[in-house]
Amino acid sequence: MGDTIISEEPSRRRFLATASGLVALGAAPTLAKDAGASDPKNLPPNVADWSRALGDGVVSKPYGVPSKFEQHVVRRDVEWLTASRESSVSFTPIHALDGIITPNGLCFERHHSGVAEIDPQDYRLMVHGLVERPMLFTLDDLKRFPRVNRIHFLECAANSGMEWRGAQLNGCQYTHGMVHCVEYTGVPLRYLLDEAGLKSNAKWVLAEGGDAAAMTRSIPLSKILDDCLVAYRMNGEMLRPENGYPVRLVVPGWEGNMWVKWLRRLKIGDEPWETREETSKYTDLLPDGKARKHTFVMDAKSIITAPSPQTPVRTKGFTVISGLAWSGRGKVKRVDVSLDGGRNWREARIDGLVLDKACVRFYATIDWNGEPLLLQSRAIDDTGYVQPTKDALRKIRGVNSIYHNNGIQTYSVRPDGEVENVEVS
Amino acid sequence: MGDTIISEEPSRRRFLATASGLVALGAAPTLAKDAGASDPKNLPPNVADWSRALGDGVVSKPYGVPSKFEQHVVRRDVEWLTASRESSVSFTPIHALDGIITPNGLCFERHHSGVAEIDPQDYRLMVHGLVERPMLFTLDDLKRFPRVNRIHFLECAANSGMEWRGAQLNGCQYTHGMVHCVEYTGVPLRYLLDEAGLKSNAKWVLAEGGDAAAMTRSIPLSKILDDCLVAYRMNGEMLRPENGYPVRLVVPGWEGNMWVKWLRRLKIGDEPWETREETSKYTDLLPDGKARKHTFVMDAKSIITAPSPQTPVRTKGFTVISGLAWSGRGKVKRVDVSLDGGRNWREARIDGLVLDKACVRFYATIDWNGEPLLLQSRAIDDTGYVQPTKDALRKIRGVNSIYHNNGIQTYSVRPDGEVENVEVS
Repeated sequence: MGDTIISEEPSRRRFLATASGLVALGAAPTLAKDAGASDPKNLPPNVADWSRALGDGVVSKPYGVPSKFEQHVVRRDVEWLTASRESSVSFTPIHALDGIITPNGLCFERHHSGVAEIDPQDYRLMVHGLVERPMLFTLDDLKRFPRVNRIHFLECAANSGMEWRGAQLNGCQYTHGMVHCVEYTGVPLRYLLDEAGLKSNAKWVLAEGGDAAAMTRSIPLSKILDDCLVAYRMNGEMLRPENGYPVRLVVPGWEGNMWVKWLRRLKIGDEPWETREETSKYTDLLPDGKARKHTFVMDAKSIITAPSPQTPVRTKGFTVISGLAWSGRGKVKRVDVSLDGGRNWREARIDGLVLDKACVRFYATIDWNGEPLLLQSRAIDDTGYVQPTKDALRKIRGVNSIYHNNGIQTYSVRPDGEVENVEVS
Repeated sequence: MGDTIISEEPSRRRFLATASGLVALGAAPTLAKDAGASDPKNLPPNVADWSRALGDGVVSKPYGVPSKFEQHVVRRDVEWLTASRESSVSFTPIHALDGIITPNGLCFERHHSGVAEIDPQDYRLMVHGLVERPMLFTLDDLKRFPRVNRIHFLECAANSGMEWRGAQLNGCQYTHGMVHCVEYTGVPLRYLLDEAGLKSNAKWVLAEGGDAAAMTRSIPLSKILDDCLVAYRMNGEMLRPENGYPVRLVVPGWEGNMWVKWLRRLKIGDEPWETREETSKYTDLLPDGKARKHTFVMDAKSIITAPSPQTPVRTKGFTVISGLAWSGRGKVKRVDVSLDGGRNWREARIDGLVLDKACVRFYATIDWNGEPLLLQSRAIDDTGYVQPTKDALRKIRGVNSIYHNNGIQTYSVRPDGEVENVEVS
């Protein structure tokens, strides 16, 4: 039977016919080092302690927190990566999540001057420049405009940036965890610009953050009018401080740096401002010494989140491969999975919502007999774009880059079930 | 212009033509008691403190929490409602949320014996009764089956239960907050039953919780095979303890009590067990002394979440009415809003996802001049069912009931912007 991907289509008989011995009283073959929980010799008592006594009441926890058994699922401390805590980063623990929604408490962070703490009563958004009526909006003003709800991924342009020169980090949380996907609620930015009245020579918008870094980016007016939001909520509640409370830009499909947090100012102009964040940073230095700039769209990308270095395989037999895919150009149309480092591919099952510029979840089930694997996934979006190999990217872009690495990631699965981030060519 | 609902359709010119003075430098008419933030005389300093100094770094908060300015958004203490903390309830603060996704930390709770604290290593799910092969699944076993992701609402059958005899509570959090809507990840239960092999006389399934209450419900096999999940995740992360960690049933569209938490056992039988929870409780005593039972489906319902008693109107002029609607029979097709206690209705704008047995978000914008309003909303689902008035429900069901109150709620908006829960007939 070997290491083959098994059909998960509605003909579930096929899955179950092969799987008949899968879960019978924990009888699946277990890797020696992790034996225990699924070993029939190690069954729990018939009536567990938690069924014998009252549990905690409801009053003590007005805002809920995860189980104490899930305390390892955090946006890890990464002091090793940055010189200061204020210009730093944390990572979505994508190896420990599933589905497409990221819970607010686990959305990655990237700050340039720490988390601005803004009193919503004192918050103002200024709109000025090439407009008929410069305006200053309070948060309550923004809430009086018609609002919309959109689920979108947000990916930092530097996500996977350490991987340009080869496999550096062991764990998709650190190689691919600068992405999250939530439901945003906010005002279409075009409503605010209509209110201010655009002048006829308006072509670009400068967005400035209210943090001490005054993070500033130029955004083409066409994108602003198309689908950008001035958002104040994520997953129903007000934005978290580290995600821009009380107001941030949502720039669907474009690099995270442009989704300016703690949004303070929108200046309308007729050309880009060429700020630090679109010249010295967030550009890609090519081998010939020229640099790509205004590389706003995040191209199609995917990552297997389990099995992965932080989520090794615990048991032989049926194993669900789970992963995330997204495209800044539209919808993910298909995701393929390879078990042999890209020689052979099979289409994965995308399950759940397939939305524009949002994450999708894909699955493939294997019947693993302990043979080494080289796991890969590749996303294909509805423009026909196919996620490239890292080598194909390097041939064009060289290895000077930090940003915009959407190359295919490879995991080596060893006979003991441990998983390592590796390179194949 | 009066208290009319304003078109929010893409012809935004119409909205903005009326709204031209809306947000110009905080110049909208402000209710005296809340003057301040949007008053042009009270502008913040040009460069605020938060733009002058570094904010907090990222390391100290591995699991994120809301802004300190949002500490009032909690599932409130409700000791007044229950004699003990263990058999008690908390409420989703729906008055302070928007969109359709409920953040995990704010999903309401209802426990019969407190929150069972279950070590996932010791967790087992037993499947027995009318099956060929009784089985015991570990959590890892469950994770080896193909999984799916579904966004569904969950509503307690007792939601709005205090309202049968008239407007009792002031605030939609308390009248309608026993509902939430998240993305679940889990195994279709039919996969597990196929694994165990159903006997030909199997017709009902008994689901038992692992808490000290051993919460137990009978569910028709047809529903189980149709769309029920054995879920272990909500919004990407593992279930929260108060929502059944590590495993709960998902019974889309049916009353929350059937979504057994801390799921311990599934027994397959040929008739319902007539447990306490489907005889003494979760049945509706009619005026003639008979009781409705097996009233599983939660009928179409809606509630305006803002303005509402906990979210009064702060400013005259343009005001967004925001609300939630759902139906246990399918998709919400339409929501209507009335400003005059149900005499005149206008279709609200549903924005964002419209999914099967999930919440939808609806909006209507009014230009409020301070006249008293009687706000109502009514949901219509894709079966054609129209949410009834409370009086229409009482004519049939009397006022003995606790459960299954999906009647139309009325809010009186006073000239000072305060909102009260009232009855109209």
